Amino acid sequence: MPYRADDPALYFDAHVFVCVNERAPDHSRGCCKAKGAEGLREYMKGRAKALGLGKVRINQAGCLDRCELGPTVVIYPEGVWYTVRSEADVDEVLETHVKNGGRVERLLLPPELTPAKLAKARAGG
Amino acid sequence: MPYRADDPALYFDAHVFVCVNERAPDHSRGCCKAKGAEGLREYMKGRAKALGLGKVRINQAGCLDRCELGPTVVIYPEGVWYTVRSEADVDEVLETHVKNGGRVERLLLPPELTPAKLAKARAGG
Repeated sequence: MPYRADDPALYFDAHVFVCVNERAPDHSRGCCKAKGAEGLREYMKGRAKALGLGKVRINQAGCLDRCELGPTVVIYPEGVWYTVRSEADVDEVLETHVKNGGRVERLLLPPELTPAKLAKARAGG
Repeated sequence: MPYRADDPALYFDAHVFVCVNERAPDHSRGCCKAKGAEGLREYMKGRAKALGLGKVRINQAGCLDRCELGPTVVIYPEGVWYTVRSEADVDEVLETHVKNGGRVERLLLPPELTPAKLAKARAGG
């Protein structure tokens, strides 16, 4: 386990990272930016503020390496991943997960969906 | 507590975010990019690979809002923050923290060092 009892307190109660990475248009993996990640991140930042969420930060991040499933979002310290495709998705993640501590089941990204497994599935393997 | 017993397993055992944000040269808070954050992140990425660290990702991030203390790095899921100013610092964080699960006490960024408190201290308050 990575945690230690004597670690400092968390600086942010919820630290949200939104992948905004851009790849060339013909890249086989695609990219989050081409799926509107930048606008969704801006929207999320504004909504988090409007909701008065306290020690919460909505950051942009480089490639989170789950490009096929994007736009991808990961929320720490819990390490829960979501695919967030619309402003309605953003609202639901902020309200249900960040504000109320629940989970948005329909948007969850399970850890077993790795790039290798996705490539294999596509190839019919 | 943000964790739930039924959350999916972690996708990365150590998810490291390095702030590479750039501000105007005359900005009072400074920025991590001006302190060499991009080069340090590239170095960290290469070293993590060379060390054969498994499910570890070294990502760049937008402004982590602790600019005065940069270059800043946060490691999740444990949420431990460091100031990393040199390649030697990077080596120590990777070896001691990420590989061996320890903490690099001399580089730790305590949560009470907020921008507001730093500004107050500077103003002699």
